[in-house]
Amino acid sequence: MNILVLNGPNLNLLGVRQPEIYGSLSLADIEAILRRKASQLGVSIEFRQTNHEGILVDWIHQARGVFDGILLNAGGYTHTSVALRDAILATEMQVVEVHLSNIHAREEFRHRSLIAAVCRGQICGFGAQSYVLALEACVSFNTVA
Amino acid sequence: MNILVLNGPNLNLLGVRQPEIYGSLSLADIEAILRRKASQLGVSIEFRQTNHEGILVDWIHQARGVFDGILLNAGGYTHTSVALRDAILATEMQVVEVHLSNIHAREEFRHRSLIAAVCRGQICGFGAQSYVLALEACVSFNTVA
Amino acid sequence: MNILVLNGPNLNLLGVRQPEIYGSLSLADIEAILRRKASQLGVSIEFRQTNHEGILVDWIHQARGVFDGILLNAGGYTHTSVALRDAILATEMQVVEVHLSNIHAREEFRHRSLIAAVCRGQICGFGAQSYVLALEACVSFNTVA
Amino acid sequence: MNILVLNGPNLNLLGVRQPEIYGSLSLADIEAILRRKASQLGVSIEFRQTNHEGILVDWIHQARGVFDGILLNAGGYTHTSVALRDAILATEMQVVEVHLSNIHAREEFRHRSLIAAVCRGQICGFGAQSYVLALEACVSFNTVA
Amino acid sequence: MNILVLNGPNLNLLGVRQPEIYGSLSLADIEAILRRKASQLGVSIEFRQTNHEGILVDWIHQARGVFDGILLNAGGYTHTSVALRDAILATEMQVVEVHLSNIHAREEFRHRSLIAAVCRGQICGFGAQSYVLALEACVSFNTVA
Amino acid sequence: MNILVLNGPNLNLLGVRQPEIYGSLSLADIEAILRRKASQLGVSIEFRQTNHEGILVDWIHQARGVFDGILLNAGGYTHTSVALRDAILATEMQVVEVHLSNIHAREEFRHRSLIAAVCRGQICGFGAQSYVLALEACVSFNTVA
Amino acid sequence: MNILVLNGPNLNLLGVRQPEIYGSLSLADIEAILRRKASQLGVSIEFRQTNHEGILVDWIHQARGVFDGILLNAGGYTHTSVALRDAILATEMQVVEVHLSNIHAREEFRHRSLIAAVCRGQICGFGAQSYVLALEACVSFNTVA
Amino acid sequence: MNILVLNGPNLNLLGVRQPEIYGSLSLADIEAILRRKASQLGVSIEFRQTNHEGILVDWIHQARGVFDGILLNAGGYTHTSVALRDAILATEMQVVEVHLSNIHAREEFRHRSLIAAVCRGQICGFGAQSYVLALEACVSFNTVA
Amino acid sequence: MNILVLNGPNLNLLGVRQPEIYGSLSLADIEAILRRKASQLGVSIEFRQTNHEGILVDWIHQARGVFDGILLNAGGYTHTSVALRDAILATEMQVVEVHLSNIHAREEFRHRSLIAAVCRGQICGFGAQSYVLALEACVSFNTVA
Amino acid sequence: MNILVLNGPNLNLLGVRQPEIYGSLSLADIEAILRRKASQLGVSIEFRQTNHEGILVDWIHQARGVFDGILLNAGGYTHTSVALRDAILATEMQVVEVHLSNIHAREEFRHRSLIAAVCRGQICGFGAQSYVLALEACVSFNTVA
Amino acid sequence: MNILVLNGPNLNLLGVRQPEIYGSLSLADIEAILRRKASQLGVSIEFRQTNHEGILVDWIHQARGVFDGILLNAGGYTHTSVALRDAILATEMQVVEVHLSNIHAREEFRHRSLIAAVCRGQICGFGAQSYVLALEACVSFNTVA
Amino acid sequence: MNILVLNGPNLNLLGVRQPEIYGSLSLADIEAILRRKASQLGVSIEFRQTNHEGILVDWIHQARGVFDGILLNAGGYTHTSVALRDAILATEMQVVEVHLSNIHAREEFRHRSLIAAVCRGQICGFGAQSYVLALEACVSFNTVA
Repeated sequence: MNILVLNGPNLNLLGVRQPEIYGSLSLADIEAILRRKASQLGVSIEFRQTNHEGILVDWIHQARGVFDGILLNAGGYTHTSVALRDAILATEMQVVEVHLSNIHAREEFRHRSLIAAVCRGQICGFGAQSYVLALEACVSFNTVA
Repeated sequence: MNILVLNGPNLNLLGVRQPEIYGSLSLADIEAILRRKASQLGVSIEFRQTNHEGILVDWIHQARGVFDGILLNAGGYTHTSVALRDAILATEMQVVEVHLSNIHAREEFRHRSLIAAVCRGQICGFGAQSYVLALEACVSFNTVA
Repeated sequence: MNILVLNGPNLNLLGVRQPEIYGSLSLADIEAILRRKASQLGVSIEFRQTNHEGILVDWIHQARGVFDGILLNAGGYTHTSVALRDAILATEMQVVEVHLSNIHAREEFRHRSLIAAVCRGQICGFGAQSYVLALEACVSFNTVA
Repeated sequence: MNILVLNGPNLNLLGVRQPEIYGSLSLADIEAILRRKASQLGVSIEFRQTNHEGILVDWIHQARGVFDGILLNAGGYTHTSVALRDAILATEMQVVEVHLSNIHAREEFRHRSLIAAVCRGQICGFGAQSYVLALEACVSFNTVA
Repeated sequence: MNILVLNGPNLNLLGVRQPEIYGSLSLADIEAILRRKASQLGVSIEFRQTNHEGILVDWIHQARGVFDGILLNAGGYTHTSVALRDAILATEMQVVEVHLSNIHAREEFRHRSLIAAVCRGQICGFGAQSYVLALEACVSFNTVA
Repeated sequence: MNILVLNGPNLNLLGVRQPEIYGSLSLADIEAILRRKASQLGVSIEFRQTNHEGILVDWIHQARGVFDGILLNAGGYTHTSVALRDAILATEMQVVEVHLSNIHAREEFRHRSLIAAVCRGQICGFGAQSYVLALEACVSFNTVA
Repeated sequence: MNILVLNGPNLNLLGVRQPEIYGSLSLADIEAILRRKASQLGVSIEFRQTNHEGILVDWIHQARGVFDGILLNAGGYTHTSVALRDAILATEMQVVEVHLSNIHAREEFRHRSLIAAVCRGQICGFGAQSYVLALEACVSFNTVA
Repeated sequence: MNILVLNGPNLNLLGVRQPEIYGSLSLADIEAILRRKASQLGVSIEFRQTNHEGILVDWIHQARGVFDGILLNAGGYTHTSVALRDAILATEMQVVEVHLSNIHAREEFRHRSLIAAVCRGQICGFGAQSYVLALEACVSFNTVA
Repeated sequence: MNILVLNGPNLNLLGVRQPEIYGSLSLADIEAILRRKASQLGVSIEFRQTNHEGILVDWIHQARGVFDGILLNAGGYTHTSVALRDAILATEMQVVEVHLSNIHAREEFRHRSLIAAVCRGQICGFGAQSYVLALEACVSFNTVA
Repeated sequence: MNILVLNGPNLNLLGVRQPEIYGSLSLADIEAILRRKASQLGVSIEFRQTNHEGILVDWIHQARGVFDGILLNAGGYTHTSVALRDAILATEMQVVEVHLSNIHAREEFRHRSLIAAVCRGQICGFGAQSYVLALEACVSFNTVA
Repeated sequence: MNILVLNGPNLNLLGVRQPEIYGSLSLADIEAILRRKASQLGVSIEFRQTNHEGILVDWIHQARGVFDGILLNAGGYTHTSVALRDAILATEMQVVEVHLSNIHAREEFRHRSLIAAVCRGQICGFGAQSYVLALEACVSFNTVA
Repeated sequence: MNILVLNGPNLNLLGVRQPEIYGSLSLADIEAILRRKASQLGVSIEFRQTNHEGILVDWIHQARGVFDGILLNAGGYTHTSVALRDAILATEMQVVEVHLSNIHAREEFRHRSLIAAVCRGQICGFGAQSYVLALEACVSFNTVA
């Protein structure tokens, strides 16, 4: 099983800034933790980050036929991108929406996710652990279905 | 470690009705799956269900000093209960909000959770697996912190 | 044929207060009128009242397999209860929403019924007669379908 | 006793289209069912249909002093016509609002009725039976008051 | 000078009903009062009433080249008719909006007039006197301009 | 008969600026026109202007027992002053709301008048003529009632 | 192939007024242009105009079984008529919504079309050319489907 | 004189948690303070707490004919319960709404009280002193009226 | 201890008008009652009224270092004045918001108080007694803190 | 004549997914159809697709002085991009907005187009035919103007 | 060149309170800094403060023909005063809106400025430096234009 | 001192189009003016433009540790980009928001800036001078702090 892990804008700065919200781990730390979990679960992962909405759309397109599921932390695009929503719809990929912080406990405009309705489910608020849980979720419904 | 799992209104009917939304497992099935996971993780769980908002509030109160965290699927009260929100605030329990279905993909009024902002995080959309992941989340931040 | 008639909060005070809105009949009077009608129609009814949202949910659950339909005057919970809505959905009972007063001619917040969309239909504004008509409606679509 | 039954726009197409919403009976069928009921109740009815808002207003005006009550299914004008609302207010006729479908279970804009607040009550969701119940309602409060 | 006075839906019932809002004069009384004023001012008036939105639109069209201004009491269509608004725009007639009652002191939905923005001005709240004042307004700006 | 004419903020600049909206007459010109009309009608007027909300409130208070009615052009305070609204309510003066321009044809925030609901009526859009008509209105309902 | 072209309120005044918005062609000019196109395409058209909402509803009803599609420029009723929407739904006619002007570039209330959701598609902003394109659209999907 | 003091959900936890909002006194402390005041004023009080909306409704019902007034701190139900509002209306009890904290200085959803409009008045923001003042208010208007 | 009592617009008319809302006591009566209470409590009060928003702001400024607290009935400015809110913030005075009537039971726009969030608490609905209670509140938290 | 055809995010997946909404033709098929039409009309077209908002902005900039008009299907950016709107304004290009599906019949957030107000017109709902019609529109107003 | 600097309500308390928002400089300090800058730029300034909305309006009126521009920090009236907006419109003065704090980073109601749309521009968030920059802006566009 | 000046979408077209809104200077002209000012102030600037949201995010990231502040004119992304807002938060750069035009005097959707709340301050409406003032602001608070 092959899972694509996509990180959106500003996640490359993780661990450096605002640890009170996002925790003190860097994105590389999270990737390492996730790779360890992936190896336990016997799945392979591809881990990427970009600040560009269009590249996220491109990557979701390219995942068709190559990956069995996507872990998507779309960062700020979560709340503004119809293009991402349409990419998920168009590719019919199984996507798990992930957030490090609890988006429902922050500014009003972060409560609405434009992509949530087309994802399989949402996991938020557990820091790096959000990714680990999302990977398990991804594996479990690929195993069952 | 001791985790309280609380289920709100109508969850007692699980598996009997609307399997296209909630899956075909009964609440007893979910309890069994969760107990298996709990035993793997070396934690004990207490599993309860009620249709009464006031009883959910009572149970959250009683958890103080007895349990290390709460898994809360508040069902329909998720969207209407300030009392539950205040109970979580007042007891300062660590609560993980759980939903079987992806509430963000359903009716508009289910997108807003009155309790999300005072929970540690939210997991929704993975059926019984939502509970399993929430238990892991609960254990992991009790272990770390 | 077996019909369950459920009355929500404050309906136990009928006839005593606010007759300009709710009429001068007591809930017992309405039960008597309804029993007379039921006997004409050759159906039996069970008539209950509670001020507790959770008990209404419990009663709707218990109606499955026992009653052929429900007459529901949810009182104030009409406008605030997602739990009741979910109970109707989960049990797939045929429910007729009943109100003594014309809720659309009162305060703005009474115009929206959270349960209307999952009921078979709505009858409001005719006092005790609302119940009588609702019983007929209930019988007629059980007879036809 | 003399009751005027008014049908608004598109009700002339009943039975031909969208039976999943409006049922398979034609407007003539409904008239026949209602005449049978009227004869049982010992009242006479006048049954009309128009697609014109202005004609509905005219007919309500003409009902003063001639009819004892009005059954009004205003169709699409239910949600947009202040003129109809004012006609009911101006004539002080007793009006029962009727709908074949459950308007509260359909598009958002159908949930608001501009005429509901000036009608005696509302009956919706029971197909042709909505008319039968409305006639009973009309007769009963003319008998009592 | 030639002024067209147009009365919309339900104004034919004036004097008969709701005198607490609209006063006790009939529409014929208002016409008589207005004719007396017109004769004092040396202008002629044409006075009409209809319950049909489409006829109001037709009449406004026909006024072009025939009348020097319009007094328009559009009744309930004031709040719902884009067609009337467009008719005034299309004909470029000078229109004075008139209301017997103070629409700003009544239900919320009567506060918004869809035609106000394309009329010369608005006079409301003075009963029959509203018409007299509107006629003077009409004459005065036809005299000046 | 004694009428108080009150002008709110910025009306002292009339005729100097924005003639495309307010016309080319100065406030003194309007006072002169109005005095001529008052003399024709056999009433006396008191004509004042202030830029201070509090002074408008004071003046309305002082009008009790001294004046038979008020012509009020509250300028910008029309849309923001609850204090003015309460002053009219508290003194129970008969007030006619006047505006030179058609406030319903300008910016959205000018469409709502906080004082309209407690005035006898509203006249707007006719420039200086708005005042003349308002004076007539004031005289007529003082004569009749 | 037989296409019905329906024009709503105020379109009879085309060419005479507001050419900056609607262009300088009269409705007769547009009909002539459209007939020429129809003849090129080998289809026949019926071209009508009315200011009455009810007549538009009637005409849509009569189109069933007689015409293969409708070009509908509902004018001001586009934004206010649920009755028209229901007529299209009830007759299941293929309707192309047409506007001379770009309604999305005008007043806020013109951005919402109540009938758009039940039409096949919308063409707006190209003046008389909007009709020509709509006719082609109508022919093309009748040819294909 | 006999006053019923009702405390809603989570007030049983007072003094234990969130002292920065609710103060450091327990509910028992507040009861003691209030009993001292009651004895000074020569009135007797009954002091109760529940986390159940339905029990609050029950208690308000039972107060009729037994108590001369109610001090009601409905906690979280203040903002969500139509049932409580209706209970106050139905029993016509004199109710003083009390809050320890200043609800208008907290989250947006706490600014709206569904019961305020049917209570005699509201006192909030003074901690335990809010209860003392409410008791005085209650006694004073029972003494006067 | 020294308390400043500030009364905003229209409160000078108390007792003369609208006794059904504000009671029959004049402002002087209220001052007398409050002085009696102040003397019982051993505090001195300064009692003022103005219809000017700017003067209220001035007086709040001047209170710094001179008074120990402010009783503020800002009348209509309660709902519209950011300047008053900022004055309270800037001076850091302890302010108790007072209203004679229950503002939450009146027009929608009176439910929102712009100053409530920066006051210590709010007391409304008890007529002159509101002032008495507010004085006690003011004294009590000055004594404790 | 030279026309630029721009396709936004996810349109590269056409024909592969969601044919029930977007039809079964691929983007290459649409290009072929459009080229055939262009050749009939004697115009040349340039056909491009990108998933990047910034590239769409770049391409619109580059069109100035090179192309006579733009056909723009902005996909998901239609509803979220002020940058695209400003690009059209800044270049003053003649743009025709195109959509394969009827955006007014889909989710609420697709009803609002941020670019519609600065385009010449909008064509939506006719699948590939939408492009063909848009090309004709583009040619016709370049020919006339 | 002659510039009028106007300061609205509560700015007289600068430096004394809330330095975390407004900085530690007093209004006199700001005046001194600004005078130094004015002298560098070779312009003269007049520096005033008032807590009265009406006086701000008066001062703007008096500026016509006397001053070449206005620096306006309207304080709390920024968000509530149509009268100020109209004063700027009526005098056609060039006004620069100034704020010490970043109003867009504070409470929601401070984000909307009623005067911004009629000012030349807005400078906020730089403390006393906001005034210095505004003076430069004022001078530069008076020099150029 | 080192300042990064970032220009968002469409600013590359400055001077060519819409000079009535943006002035007649090109972006190169503005850069030249700003370089002159920078040299006067003894600071160096880096001046860039892009139409890509992602590149703006990238550039803000790269500014950390390299630049002492950012001048940001985000163009259309000002109103739609959460990603930019998060980039500013994540890098903790001091950012001055700049606009050539007065965004508060244009379309409603331009009044809200998603980045304003995380910038140091905002300067808008002064054309190229906005940049000059922003540079001074940037320098001054880097000098002081």
